[in-house]
Amino acid sequence: MNRRKRFLAACRGEAVDRPPVWIMRQAGRYLPEYLEFRKQYTFQEVYTSPANALEVAQQPLRRFDLDAAIVFSDILVIPEAMGQRVDYADGGPVLSPPLGQDVDPEKLPRPDCSTALGFAYEAIRVLREWCADDRAVLGFAGAPYSLAAYMVEGGGSRHQEAVKLLLFSDPPRAKALLDRIADVVADHLELQVQAGADAIQLFDTWAGALSPTAYEEFALPATRKVMDRLAPLGVPRILYINGSAGILDQAATAGADMLSVDWRMDMGEVVRRLGDTPLQGNLDPMELFGPPDRIRRRVREIHRAVGRPSGHVFNLGHGILPGTPIEGAAAFVDAVHELTE
Amino acid sequence: MNRRKRFLAACRGEAVDRPPVWIMRQAGRYLPEYLEFRKQYTFQEVYTSPANALEVAQQPLRRFDLDAAIVFSDILVIPEAMGQRVDYADGGPVLSPPLGQDVDPEKLPRPDCSTALGFAYEAIRVLREWCADDRAVLGFAGAPYSLAAYMVEGGGSRHQEAVKLLLFSDPPRAKALLDRIADVVADHLELQVQAGADAIQLFDTWAGALSPTAYEEFALPATRKVMDRLAPLGVPRILYINGSAGILDQAATAGADMLSVDWRMDMGEVVRRLGDTPLQGNLDPMELFGPPDRIRRRVREIHRAVGRPSGHVFNLGHGILPGTPIEGAAAFVDAVHELTE
Repeated sequence: MNRRKRFLAACRGEAVDRPPVWIMRQAGRYLPEYLEFRKQYTFQEVYTSPANALEVAQQPLRRFDLDAAIVFSDILVIPEAMGQRVDYADGGPVLSPPLGQDVDPEKLPRPDCSTALGFAYEAIRVLREWCADDRAVLGFAGAPYSLAAYMVEGGGSRHQEAVKLLLFSDPPRAKALLDRIADVVADHLELQVQAGADAIQLFDTWAGALSPTAYEEFALPATRKVMDRLAPLGVPRILYINGSAGILDQAATAGADMLSVDWRMDMGEVVRRLGDTPLQGNLDPMELFGPPDRIRRRVREIHRAVGRPSGHVFNLGHGILPGTPIEGAAAFVDAVHELTE
Repeated sequence: MNRRKRFLAACRGEAVDRPPVWIMRQAGRYLPEYLEFRKQYTFQEVYTSPANALEVAQQPLRRFDLDAAIVFSDILVIPEAMGQRVDYADGGPVLSPPLGQDVDPEKLPRPDCSTALGFAYEAIRVLREWCADDRAVLGFAGAPYSLAAYMVEGGGSRHQEAVKLLLFSDPPRAKALLDRIADVVADHLELQVQAGADAIQLFDTWAGALSPTAYEEFALPATRKVMDRLAPLGVPRILYINGSAGILDQAATAGADMLSVDWRMDMGEVVRRLGDTPLQGNLDPMELFGPPDRIRRRVREIHRAVGRPSGHVFNLGHGILPGTPIEGAAAFVDAVHELTE
């Protein structure tokens, strides 16, 4: 079974010889060759150049036998296309000006992504060509709620004061904003699929900070709109929400083909709650800092917890962390390869 | 039914006229009179002085009709008593030197809390005297895992790299450290009860970042040790874990009399999973920034989700945030008062 077929079969809950494996943020800041490459180029110079983006997307594939490649890009290309300035500072990205409480969603531009974000589709085309039929190619975007959080706050925020203030004090305005962002997210993902992405993943980094009530009222309808727009394209749609244990039942109704589960949940319990829904995950990224023996044991434990021969893509429960030892990442990938159905 | 009886009955799952209510961090940084008071005293000068601690513990009770008072103290008094220096900086507390990976748990001092932390018991005695039989008095401490995280990292940490590295790379050493901290936590809580605390709450701020497997392996045994030590005293033991949706079943086995639930879970689902276990919580602290009408509606929704006439203490799902409007806190307390069984 080749890698691409294995990956796509697992996303659809079809039989596989072993679970496919990739690593969220597999290209990037933990790889010495990436850090070396970044001495020549800024982060934005990497993802806006299809040749540079291809180089760094290939880097983890030269080291590890991963079943999927993911385009090197960033979730904040959408706020940028919608008119905000994005600076990547050491303390996290800064978006200016912040949209704040008085945002008029009707006045936010709906960019023509095919021109504004053309570099991203070209990056997918060259990656698709390089992967040929050998590996699945993933496209991705930020989920509407996470993008709204960044855009309203002007950056990341532990308590998300500004965006939650907007949700709770002016629900109609918040919903209109989320709806507008959802349109652009769907445009961007559609174009990625047209450029050759085999599957797409929606990253909701911040929605785990919402109560189930607030998730259902605000984030879910916008996520569902994106999923519905993509449905006719027929590619697997993966939904990742960081910290989703309390909103799992709601997330399962968003229309995704696969839920990507963070590490703060037992996969056995997720399977009991969600039945046949294909799942991705969910090793704690910090486990890769531990000894290889423990990593292999944890991989087998997660595999047993999933407890079924299909519908599981192995991954971490969150992006791989800066400073992760290469041996830890290698032990993780090897341990998945040692699994057989 | 007076406030103290109402609070203690709810902790024990006995009948009450309405759910009692208090607010995590009810004394402190959102109150103008507290901020005014702090112009004269540092944070440490407040909690190490029983008279000052009494003043700020009383401040929220003058504004709101709350059923419980909580001693004004800090979870980091234990690391300090165990020999670390604690500085309260703007970016969060700094503990020096960090224990790091080479900590020898056997060599960590087990302080005589009755002298090292005598101010805390005196603060409880004066608060108990002032509350008389009118209000319940709560004591508290940090849970062993959260204290270990602070002590090993030397402060708060988003990914908890240092403490998790210790857990995953040297489990016996990590367990010995947690066990040693648990002894001191139990000593400290015992003395608070002897000084007059009607109930105690253990705060596990960071354990929600652990996988269920790691929680069960490391944090849970140490928490259980504390709960077991306190059992003979017969006071309600409340366990608060921030972000516990994925480890709820494990947390329910820790031996606490009541689980304090953060806002990222539906109370109805918690009741379905945990049955009769008394619960505390769980409004999102950010909801207090919204309009009073919405706060009242959310209180009624949570009350309906709990769906039973006893075993519920109303609270936020996390500490009240700096900048919270007084009207929001007042609307929350009033809305609970409007509930009747």
